[in-house]
Parts: sequence; structure tokens; C-alpha cells
Amino acid sequence: MRPLAVSLGDPAGVGPEVIAAAWRAGRGGDLPVFFVCGGAAIFAALDCPTVPIGDPAEAAVAFASGIPTMAGPEGVYHPGQPDPAGAGQALASLADAVGHAVAGRAAGVVTGPVSKSLIAAHDPGFIGQTEFCADACAAPRENAVMLLAGPSLKVVPLTVHCALADVPRLITRDLILCRTRIAARALSDDFGIAAPRIAITGLNPHAGEDGRMGREEIEVIAPAIAVLRAEGIDTTGPHPADTLFAPHIRPTYDLAIAMYHDQALAPLKALDFDSGVNITMGLPIVRTSPDHGTAFGIAGKGVASANAMIAAIRAAGEIAARRANLG
Amino acid sequence: MRPLAVSLGDPAGVGPEVIAAAWRAGRGGDLPVFFVCGGAAIFAALDCPTVPIGDPAEAAVAFASGIPTMAGPEGVYHPGQPDPAGAGQALASLADAVGHAVAGRAAGVVTGPVSKSLIAAHDPGFIGQTEFCADACAAPRENAVMLLAGPSLKVVPLTVHCALADVPRLITRDLILCRTRIAARALSDDFGIAAPRIAITGLNPHAGEDGRMGREEIEVIAPAIAVLRAEGIDTTGPHPADTLFAPHIRPTYDLAIAMYHDQALAPLKALDFDSGVNITMGLPIVRTSPDHGTAFGIAGKGVASANAMIAAIRAAGEIAARRANLG
Repeated sequence: MRPLAVSLGDPAGVGPEVIAAAWRAGRGGDLPVFFVCGGAAIFAALDCPTVPIGDPAEAAVAFASGIPTMAGPEGVYHPGQPDPAGAGQALASLADAVGHAVAGRAAGVVTGPVSKSLIAAHDPGFIGQTEFCADACAAPRENAVMLLAGPSLKVVPLTVHCALADVPRLITRDLILCRTRIAARALSDDFGIAAPRIAITGLNPHAGEDGRMGREEIEVIAPAIAVLRAEGIDTTGPHPADTLFAPHIRPTYDLAIAMYHDQALAPLKALDFDSGVNITMGLPIVRTSPDHGTAFGIAGKGVASANAMIAAIRAAGEIAARRANLG
Repeated sequence: MRPLAVSLGDPAGVGPEVIAAAWRAGRGGDLPVFFVCGGAAIFAALDCPTVPIGDPAEAAVAFASGIPTMAGPEGVYHPGQPDPAGAGQALASLADAVGHAVAGRAAGVVTGPVSKSLIAAHDPGFIGQTEFCADACAAPRENAVMLLAGPSLKVVPLTVHCALADVPRLITRDLILCRTRIAARALSDDFGIAAPRIAITGLNPHAGEDGRMGREEIEVIAPAIAVLRAEGIDTTGPHPADTLFAPHIRPTYDLAIAMYHDQALAPLKALDFDSGVNITMGLPIVRTSPDHGTAFGIAGKGVASANAMIAAIRAAGEIAARRANLG
């Protein structure tokens, strides 16, 4: 298999150190081979060996000796002190890594965590790495569906970074239909789940209790589920979100689709805090990311867990292998 | 200690069977002594022995032989088939049990699960058992603060059974101040936590990220926290709700206060599904309840877990004992 391309993330965050830790954990063959776009000087500061490579095809041989590193913009390593130059380096590393995946030189891309607001100073159109990947594939942004996956739970939040007050009007029948169709296909193609079972939450407490606490379930969510079922997608709900994530309910579905950020992420992180992976479904390229931020506050202190980065690399490798077998 | 009064809950729900299971688990001395208001015929149908008593003071002696049962309205046991007569029986049992606690004949009340909509047909003013208890104590309803407690987490939802779209305008500075003050006092008096640490969530994803996704944190929640801190209550936040319930964060606080139903309950039930207790703080009487509903769909099938009822009885006994020592 071709190697995975890993982007550095913000060099002042925990990205470089968790990549280094993932390489140490995986160099013996426990992880798919990856290379990093730029960052050789930073890995040197972290006492982590690197092997400069000129082409991703060289990564497989280099991987046992050090992190295979493509040339890229370099910066000074000052963990915990983000600045515009570092954000520029993060954006360049992201662009390079995604470019290798789009061009087919990498089997997929694993993105380190960045600061959106710092990157936006360089690229005012930058919303997030997921949208960046969609644009790089020339795919509609709405096709890029964010899946959060941990050992206990897979969940898609239908809305993410918006005020809670805006959520009710953002939940539309079309949004539910579009995201669920993409998710169903990805569960089958990328995860090998032949007949995926998808459980959709309600928006309101107790899924509205027959309209007594909000009518979105009756007017929007249930009709969308009826359409999906008629298409043959095994979709149930709207389910009360407070019980859907309970231990005896989780085995009844392969994927939960939640209406908003905290409804999806609070239970996921309560269960799988340091091993959650953000997987972008619906794009021609494979893209995963550890489900944590830059964590500037703990960067460089040697306390950041690399579990999520390791899980993200492993997940990208598995999805890429499955796609390679299908293709 | 005086015995606890237990109300039957809706007789078509799982209340009777989990009370019977709790008695079986506790008759050897593992649980505080309790009696049930009514329901002797139903326990007979469940093959559970009862001892009729005429006064709560007789419960202690009777408890080893059967469930001490005060006379009350009786009905036919038809699990899974709720009807108005059963709801009337549930309401009468609740009124009796709360009455014993208010009169000081019981050390506290543990309420079985009821159907609010079925009871409302008998008592149009009925909102829920928590409000019923406040009214019976002649206490303002806003003094009755719902705490959900499991082995992993204690959490107070500031709003509960309302549409999600209504949550932002219901979160006010006064609501946060009133509930947090009551909670802080209850943690100290009822749980023996001398200097309770209280963590308050944000309303929006990432607690609004400095106003980029909603301004309620800046305009309402943070100012309330500043007031509470000035009063000497150890309150922190607003915290991003998605990470607040993660395993390594939970030990940093004694109580989380969340803004709405699913934000509080989805993580709690993901962690502590079948052992959560609903504890009413701020009232002169002790009141707890298992944190589950009537579960009509599984009633009478012998599959309902009694863990939450057992935990509710245990919690009521502990709080009553602590208040007795203080008083």
C-alpha cells in the first residue's frame, strides 16, 4: 500500500509530539507507513529521528529508521506559543499532504490539529480542514461528512460549530437525507458494514415526546427517516438522545447521527476521550484526524496522549486498504 | 432512623417489580428500611411477600418478612397496559408517601416512575413528581433542584423538559445563581462535601469560543459565575460541554451544572445507565427516584434492572442520615 501523508498541525500545538510518539509506537510494523510534510527541524528538537525523502514512494524503506519527511517550510519549535508563522507552516503542511493524497501519491491524509482562527489570517476563506479537503478534491463541501469514531461509538453531528440557538433552523430534511446517504455508503465501502444500521437522534428532550416539547421530530426528522427507509437504508429514530448512548443500546446500531455538537461529542468523549478519530466520509480521498485540538496549554510538556493520533493513522490505513480492495 | 416511604409508581410500569427486587436485595440489612404506600395486591401478583402495617413505625420489624405496606388504593396488575385507574393509584401512592415524609413519619420519600401525561388527566396542574414534592412542602417550585447522580458523575440540568429552541432564552443569570446556590448547600449538607467544586458548562459548542458561536457565555453564564465566586462558592466555567465529562476531567469537580436535558443526561446515561438516581435538592424533605421512566414496554417481563431503584433507596437513606446528624 502507498504510504499515508501526515500534516504537522500547528507546530506550537501537540501535533508534532503526538506524530513523533505515533512513529515510535508504529515503526516496528504496528502502524501503516506514513510520511510527514515538513517539520524535520521540529522533530529534531523533539529528539525524534527523521529521514528526508524526495518522493512518498521512499517512505516505506525509510520508516524503520526515522519519520520520513518531505521538504517543506520549516520553523522554530516553540511549543505553547502559537504565532502567525507557525500557522502558515501548518497550512503549507496541510496543503502538501492533501495534495499528495489527491494526486494518488499517498493512500490518504492524516491531519494534525490546527488553530482555525490563526490560519484564517493567512487564508480568509479557511473554515476548517474538512472543508479544505473537500475543496482540494473539487467536491461540494456538503459531501464531506464528519464522523467521530471511538472504540465505543461512531457518531455524526449534523451541525457542528454554530450557536445552539441556530441549530433548530439548520436541521432540515435535506441535510438529514444528504448526510445519512453519504454515511450509509461510507459505512459499507469504508468500514465493510454490508447493511449498516443507523440511529438518528431527536433534537428535543425525549425526542419531543409526540410534539409536547418541540415539533422538529414530527415535521422534519421523522419524515426524513421515512424517506431513507423507503430507499432501503436501515434508519431508525428519532431516538431520545439521552438514552441512545447507553451501554445496552449502543450495540443496536452501527452509527448514531446526532443533531448538534454537544449531543454527539459529550457522550463520545465521556466514553472514548483520548482515542477518538475524526473521519471525513464522502470524499474521493481518505482523510482522518485525531479528535482533539492543538492543546497549546500542554504542548511540549510530554503529557499529551498520542492514542488519538495513533488511532487516526490506523483508521486511515484500514479505510485506504478497503478502498484499494474495492477499486 | 425512621423508614423511607416508597411510592409505587404507575402500576403498569416497572415500578412495582423494581421495588420488589430492591426489597429482596435489601431485606438482609443491605438497604435502609422502607415501606410502600399501597400496592399489596400487586406485590402478591409478583409473588413478593408483604406485611400490612398501620403506621410507618411498624416497618422496621416487618421489613425482614415482607414489604411493609400501608393501606392504599389497590388495582389490578396488568403490566405494560397503562390506564387512567392505574395513574390514579400512582398519584394516590405518591401523595401518601410524600405526606408521610412531610409529616416526619418517614425519613424521606423514594418515588417510583409515573406517566406525567396520564396523571395530568387526574390532576391538570401536575407537572412532575419534583414539583409535586415542592408543593407538598409549601416550598417555591424553583427551590426544588433536580440532581442526577451516578457512580461516575453528579449533574444538574438547568432546564429540562422544554424544546431545545427555548433553552437559550430560559438560561438566565438568576436561574444559574439560584440553582447553583441551592446545589452548593446541598452538596455540603446532604453529601458531606465541605467545599464543593462546581463546574458549569457553556451553552454553545466549545463554550462559544469567545463569542464566535453564541454570546450567552459572555453575557449570561460567565457573569453569573463571577457572582458565585465572589460569594465564596467554588464555581468554574463556562466549560466546553463536550470535554467536561471526559474521564480525566470528571475528578476535577464534585458537580457539573449543565444548560439543558441532553447535555446533562446523554453523558450521564452513557456512563451510568442503569444506576442513576434523581435527587431533589433544596427541599425540607429528602426525595430520590430512580432515573428511569415507567418503561411500559418491558414491564412485567422480569428484565427491568432494579439497580437504579436500589441506588435511589440507598441515596435517600444516606442523605436522611446525614441530615439527622446535622439536625
